[in-house]
Amino acid sequence: MTVATQTPERGRRRRGRSADAAPSVSRDVNYRQLKSPFPLMEVFPADQIADMHETALRMLQELGIKVLLPEARRIFVKGGARVDEDSEMVFIGRDMVEAAVAAAPKSIACRAGARCRDFTLELGSLVFQPGAGAPNATDLERGRRPATGQDYLDFLKLTHHFDVFQMISPQVEPQDVPTHLRHYFTTQAQMELTDKFPFFFSRGTPQVMDCFEMLSTARGLSDEEFRGTARCYTIINTNSPRTLDIPMAQGLVDFARYGQMSIITPFTLMGAMAPITVAGAITLSHAEVLAALTLTQLTNPGAPTCYGTFTSNVDMKSGAPAFGTPSHFQASLAAGQLARHLGLPWRSAAGSASNMNDVQAANENQFGLWGCLMAGATVIIHSAGWLEGGLTVSFEKLICDAEVLNMVAELCAGAQAGTAEIGFDTALREVAPSGHFFATSQTMERYNTAFYEPHVHDYANFGTWAERGSLDASSRATGVWKDILANFQAPAQNEERLGTLQEFIVRRTEEGGAPPES
Amino acid sequence: MTVATQTPERGRRRRGRSADAAPSVSRDVNYRQLKSPFPLMEVFPADQIADMHETALRMLQELGIKVLLPEARRIFVKGGARVDEDSEMVFIGRDMVEAAVAAAPKSIACRAGARCRDFTLELGSLVFQPGAGAPNATDLERGRRPATGQDYLDFLKLTHHFDVFQMISPQVEPQDVPTHLRHYFTTQAQMELTDKFPFFFSRGTPQVMDCFEMLSTARGLSDEEFRGTARCYTIINTNSPRTLDIPMAQGLVDFARYGQMSIITPFTLMGAMAPITVAGAITLSHAEVLAALTLTQLTNPGAPTCYGTFTSNVDMKSGAPAFGTPSHFQASLAAGQLARHLGLPWRSAAGSASNMNDVQAANENQFGLWGCLMAGATVIIHSAGWLEGGLTVSFEKLICDAEVLNMVAELCAGAQAGTAEIGFDTALREVAPSGHFFATSQTMERYNTAFYEPHVHDYANFGTWAERGSLDASSRATGVWKDILANFQAPAQNEERLGTLQEFIVRRTEEGGAPPES
Repeated sequence: MTVATQTPERGRRRRGRSADAAPSVSRDVNYRQLKSPFPLMEVFPADQIADMHETALRMLQELGIKVLLPEARRIFVKGGARVDEDSEMVFIGRDMVEAAVAAAPKSIACRAGARCRDFTLELGSLVFQPGAGAPNATDLERGRRPATGQDYLDFLKLTHHFDVFQMISPQVEPQDVPTHLRHYFTTQAQMELTDKFPFFFSRGTPQVMDCFEMLSTARGLSDEEFRGTARCYTIINTNSPRTLDIPMAQGLVDFARYGQMSIITPFTLMGAMAPITVAGAITLSHAEVLAALTLTQLTNPGAPTCYGTFTSNVDMKSGAPAFGTPSHFQASLAAGQLARHLGLPWRSAAGSASNMNDVQAANENQFGLWGCLMAGATVIIHSAGWLEGGLTVSFEKLICDAEVLNMVAELCAGAQAGTAEIGFDTALREVAPSGHFFATSQTMERYNTAFYEPHVHDYANFGTWAERGSLDASSRATGVWKDILANFQAPAQNEERLGTLQEFIVRRTEEGGAPPES
Repeated sequence: MTVATQTPERGRRRRGRSADAAPSVSRDVNYRQLKSPFPLMEVFPADQIADMHETALRMLQELGIKVLLPEARRIFVKGGARVDEDSEMVFIGRDMVEAAVAAAPKSIACRAGARCRDFTLELGSLVFQPGAGAPNATDLERGRRPATGQDYLDFLKLTHHFDVFQMISPQVEPQDVPTHLRHYFTTQAQMELTDKFPFFFSRGTPQVMDCFEMLSTARGLSDEEFRGTARCYTIINTNSPRTLDIPMAQGLVDFARYGQMSIITPFTLMGAMAPITVAGAITLSHAEVLAALTLTQLTNPGAPTCYGTFTSNVDMKSGAPAFGTPSHFQASLAAGQLARHLGLPWRSAAGSASNMNDVQAANENQFGLWGCLMAGATVIIHSAGWLEGGLTVSFEKLICDAEVLNMVAELCAGAQAGTAEIGFDTALREVAPSGHFFATSQTMERYNTAFYEPHVHDYANFGTWAERGSLDASSRATGVWKDILANFQAPAQNEERLGTLQEFIVRRTEEGGAPPES
């Protein structure tokens, strides 16, 4: 078990190996810009996928979608939609949707705070985010509690630590920070503690404009530079079924207008806010994404917009949400087929309904993860730390799930079976029957770099493990996250710009901040 | 959470649902004869796979394999191999190997004790076995201890209980049963307590002949009926590198001679008893399988023989075995490519190095499992319950892993997106914006059968879960296995034949039994 799985300041490197150890061959593993090596799995035949798309178009045209934001309805009207102002219903023609799909970029260059943190979202790329949006935090030492600013900062540092998290997510709500000032707190932290691609909530134009200005200040960007490239993102959840509320619609408009990225995600539970079937639920989700995508493209053609879904099922006996289920898996597959039908990068999600970081939590999260991977998801959200269906993020679970994600990232590097790797002369012929390969030429060349080294998994035998205290993985994870936080070093930043950012925050705070809008 | 995940006496049925509940639509899920729905992943290009195969052939011809059993060397000589009796080395020509591959059946009908338990092994089919061969058993109430006969019986009942385990494995060694009588104990138990496909160890001809006779007696088979179809199987581990020991070679010969199935499995750890590279380790494993396969086909052309591999890596710092790693995953993929190169059904393995049923154990096992699934493995061994790299089988882990396997089996059933499933008229149009789908026509038709119901995963919210005692999945699993054992009912058997079997065992015991040979 090695603790220092990643450090922030270096590019391609081996984790947890002493720099002076023999041989110098380094593994060509890059966890930052991943391409998926996984084959795509389909749950429905192509003609049924086409039927789902057609049904979604029909829904938008005949049944419509309720859009609560007047400005958004005006944009839809101007784009040719039929709007009933009394009911706030918007009916969108298929030609409008098809034009939006054609206008939406198929590849989105995401520009972070450092070039080594940049990545591209397109079909085939693979990006992970830790669990997001939870009101609570939990760990084995302090227990479950409403999340605080300190929790937010700690999770931010942990997210920065692991290369495999290429995007920053809003892991927990810092509930001790007033809501009219919270976006200053979270943005300042993202600018100071990490150079990864940042996240901003869409909670009304004033907050979003503040965040855009803070980001531009910290990155030293002109308005033109800011608008020209995706430098941050927001998550847009529709209110399924068929409703787009005020802050979400406003977020779509604001982010599109400034050339920033919206990840559109109907969060639907089969049998509750969505049909009980995978096909029905994903058709509904697809229709809602198409409506939101149409809004971003009407606002600013070419605005970076990421297709998304997060569909699982409820337990029909209790109505409780379930995650990492076979239906969740199939929903990811279906969404992937529809995203490819459009050619758009897309997000999916893992996650767990478990109430603690236990075997259920591990199994659900990984089961959902493989659904996303085989669905060809571009961005996989909630891939680490997420418990209770999103009500809590766990420090220990984040560490344990990051192990799985690292192993997935290792697979992205592939392997070779050339002459050197097969090693007839350097290994196979060197060893007599019943001998061992510890000292073959091939082993000596590679022993220091051959295998992934875990940060929390422990390969000690039972006796050694018992002597060390019989700690389970979750208990060991406590030590891992504490070590990472204790040794955390923020990446180098432009101190002058951060000073200007700080002045902005002081001024805006004095002006009363910006309350969330709804 | 429902306990009665499976019961033994019924075919296609819903688990844990009351029979009289409304609607009568039943789910078409069969966990007994599974076909893999998963796309195949390749780790090496086809030309490199061909190179690996060629290198394996060269190894057998130029380097040879040490065969400790004189009878097996005689069979090889008779088949055309060059044998050096002093060194016990056998050098096998490629024409011999190619003839053996051509002779080996590509599809193996496995005949169990009841027709609903029969299955076919061929590329594309998917069979699971629980963890096998451990000297120890563990559970949360009694702790870790040398396994006993009672443990063997309990694991056998649990294996019988879950339809997703289509084969019986030798989960633990009943160490309180003397070794010269142990095969009577395990065979009697397999005949009395389950009608699934049984396993016998290859520990010398006397024990194997006893087992064949006991099976024929219990099933009421003539010698011709027994020999004509695979009715049991053994696992053959080579002694890597390049050694076939006496009981293993004898097992290949005995099982082939009687038309029973050998699953050939070099158990190799990259960096220790195998090359440090995936390509080298799997080339070695492949060569050893080809040698063993050649022996079975020389003994009895067409004898049912299953290709196999179980290759993971060691921790190069400590030499400790690791499982569920990226290298393990890639080794499964490479083995799958080679098995398909030959066209043979094949086994792989999941497993964990963890010392308890914790998050590591769950994550390693599931990671290795997905490697097997995407490798197209026909039989996946150690897919539930296996800890400490095989030194222990855990009651709780078996229950938790069975949940994952059930969910995989659910995926085998696929899904549809026809008019009824998309449900434009029966769901999507029925619900107003921001409404719910609890009462749509589509939901009412399906609510009782829509989703997989877990036996150990718990979807209760935090408050309810805490009120119930804040039990983790492993602790809940204790209740699950105890319930299954308390309610276990053996399948109906022919009591007269079982009586004859009992008489045989009494007589053979009086005669002194049959000690294992080595």
